[in-house]
Amino acid sequence: MVSGEKSPARHYFDWAATAIPVPSPPGGSFGNPSSPHQEGRLARESLEEARSRCAAVLGVDPKTIYFTSGGTESNAIVLYSHLLNKSGARLLASAVEHASVRENISILEGLGKPAAMIPVDSSGRVSPALLDKTLEKHPDTRFAAIMAVNNEIGTVMDMAALSRVLRGRGGAPIHLHCDMVQAAGKVPVDISGWDLDSASLSAHKLGGPRGIGLLYLRRPLKSIYAGGGQEKGIRPGTENTAGALALAACLETHASPEPLQSEYAAASRRWEKLIRALQSLERCSLIPHDRPAGGEIFSPYILQASFDGIPGEVMVRALDDLGFAVSTGSACSSASPERPVLQALGIQSKQSLEGIRISQGWSTTDEEIELLLQALREVLLFL
Amino acid sequence: MVSGEKSPARHYFDWAATAIPVPSPPGGSFGNPSSPHQEGRLARESLEEARSRCAAVLGVDPKTIYFTSGGTESNAIVLYSHLLNKSGARLLASAVEHASVRENISILEGLGKPAAMIPVDSSGRVSPALLDKTLEKHPDTRFAAIMAVNNEIGTVMDMAALSRVLRGRGGAPIHLHCDMVQAAGKVPVDISGWDLDSASLSAHKLGGPRGIGLLYLRRPLKSIYAGGGQEKGIRPGTENTAGALALAACLETHASPEPLQSEYAAASRRWEKLIRALQSLERCSLIPHDRPAGGEIFSPYILQASFDGIPGEVMVRALDDLGFAVSTGSACSSASPERPVLQALGIQSKQSLEGIRISQGWSTTDEEIELLLQALREVLLFL
Repeated sequence: MVSGEKSPARHYFDWAATAIPVPSPPGGSFGNPSSPHQEGRLARESLEEARSRCAAVLGVDPKTIYFTSGGTESNAIVLYSHLLNKSGARLLASAVEHASVRENISILEGLGKPAAMIPVDSSGRVSPALLDKTLEKHPDTRFAAIMAVNNEIGTVMDMAALSRVLRGRGGAPIHLHCDMVQAAGKVPVDISGWDLDSASLSAHKLGGPRGIGLLYLRRPLKSIYAGGGQEKGIRPGTENTAGALALAACLETHASPEPLQSEYAAASRRWEKLIRALQSLERCSLIPHDRPAGGEIFSPYILQASFDGIPGEVMVRALDDLGFAVSTGSACSSASPERPVLQALGIQSKQSLEGIRISQGWSTTDEEIELLLQALREVLLFL
Repeated sequence: MVSGEKSPARHYFDWAATAIPVPSPPGGSFGNPSSPHQEGRLARESLEEARSRCAAVLGVDPKTIYFTSGGTESNAIVLYSHLLNKSGARLLASAVEHASVRENISILEGLGKPAAMIPVDSSGRVSPALLDKTLEKHPDTRFAAIMAVNNEIGTVMDMAALSRVLRGRGGAPIHLHCDMVQAAGKVPVDISGWDLDSASLSAHKLGGPRGIGLLYLRRPLKSIYAGGGQEKGIRPGTENTAGALALAACLETHASPEPLQSEYAAASRRWEKLIRALQSLERCSLIPHDRPAGGEIFSPYILQASFDGIPGEVMVRALDDLGFAVSTGSACSSASPERPVLQALGIQSKQSLEGIRISQGWSTTDEEIELLLQALREVLLFL
């Protein structure tokens, strides 16, 4: 239950758009971490402490962590580095990437960079076979962006297997970028085990503040984004010390092995209950229709479902009136009626317009799942 | 005096790097402003309230205000929009721009965009005559970046006069971009009166948090930075509602006509006192050497001075040991020994390495100016 909003009681089921925030820890020294005086040095210490703590949770070297303003910017830094690279190499992206990957790749294509999509199966997954076939077709590939968890349907990619396909091919190495925005703190992520070259995540999806995220880079790249040289030239602009400390705290709270495992187990129990109930609900179809109630192929934090004859927007409004916050697709694309992720799965246009996304978080309760189901039943009586 | 840092008492004279922060106002609803439910709508209301308040202080239409992660990003959005523009038009920038303008223009030049520098006079000023001459030489100019206040020496550009020069020429219109990061809340700025096409500013220079700034755009442009379509496609990424409200509060507190005028008068009095004392100090030269103690050609918040025989870094350390935070150049470039801004003024390399920047803020006191002068005298006895 969310307090501080208008009555009646609110039940928040849109954690994939943004998490209910937790209070941020003290923000460290106010100084500019690039300043040489004491205030600057204290701020630098705070910033480097934050970097080390993020790196420790992610199991990587602190030198590979760069703070950014969020997931969107982390993705952009990696993608636009290709403008400074004259190789003419091809950029691949899965057909279900977030708009901040998909649309920037379209822009790069317009600027002369060859690109192609990696198709997904009916679960929204890039299978090793689909990836292999795409690489076969495009031997000039040097970059592939594959997200760890899809933000609209919750599909979990088998990053380890996909990485092995990429690494197993002869020829020039392929940079593997992973958008982990919906994965970090929710499902197990393994930057080293997946042999990633880069990865993105955002604090506000983890209960942290807006305006801070991080980019993992195995090796530095040429960032197009120049300025004061902060973050070793990868991300200019005065460093957000307070944000970095808040991000470190969020990662420790949710992405460390122990909290992650028990939160994942609890989320899975709640999701299984919800999915089984939805399966038995008249006019309700899960997207994809054969989504299992459990297992590891879908995140237990996100689901997509449609209600026959009820446009998604109408359902969102009806539930909102009853105190429940759910969404249609990604909040990032809520202004657009198109659903490219659902199209990529082969979902028909009618059903895709009827889709709603339900997403939960760490403070979601069994009781809230029950209340949501009651509310859905109530709406279905009247619509 | 800064509390919360190590004893002995600290006196902060590096406000141009970052201001001493004030507590932020409540951050509005936690929702994602792009979400359609109540939490999202409340967040959207907060965001639009912040936009209207920023616009009101700046005297512009709220539709022209776009929230970004800070000044560096605001500058980058404007500059990189040129990649989507095939006109081959030339980009001009003053020789004393911040690295986030200067270095991105170099990158754009590397990507095939013609560019050129507008030289400055010995005060670091772009004079109308110098601008006119540059435009004469480069009739293909369609863009000019001129900052309102230089971040290292405090020179205030006569934006109204420069704008008239640009607007007075026949031919295709020239986009005038103004980096107002060191100007907003410090000296009078007049987006409409200066007839600007775009302008940047940052919250943390105004006592606000990191990770939030704004971009004024008279007309929308094609942003290279794609994603979820937020900020009308100009700046993607989940909107930082709390940051936007904090920025609005900072602008109201410092950039509204009344607080601005009295703070400017008080800062001018303190700066005049400091400058006259520095002029009488042995081995001290102001940069430029003929900087007046008052007047409108320099900001009363920033000054640059050198001490014969004492490298800037040594002076910064010596003052730091005595409790005073000053800097050499821009914090953004503190890792680099080069001082391109001072070089642009024709300052010799030796003196430029001896330069330190002293910058004050709203809470700086007359007593702190006295104490700084005592500390400088003490250092000069021993070094």
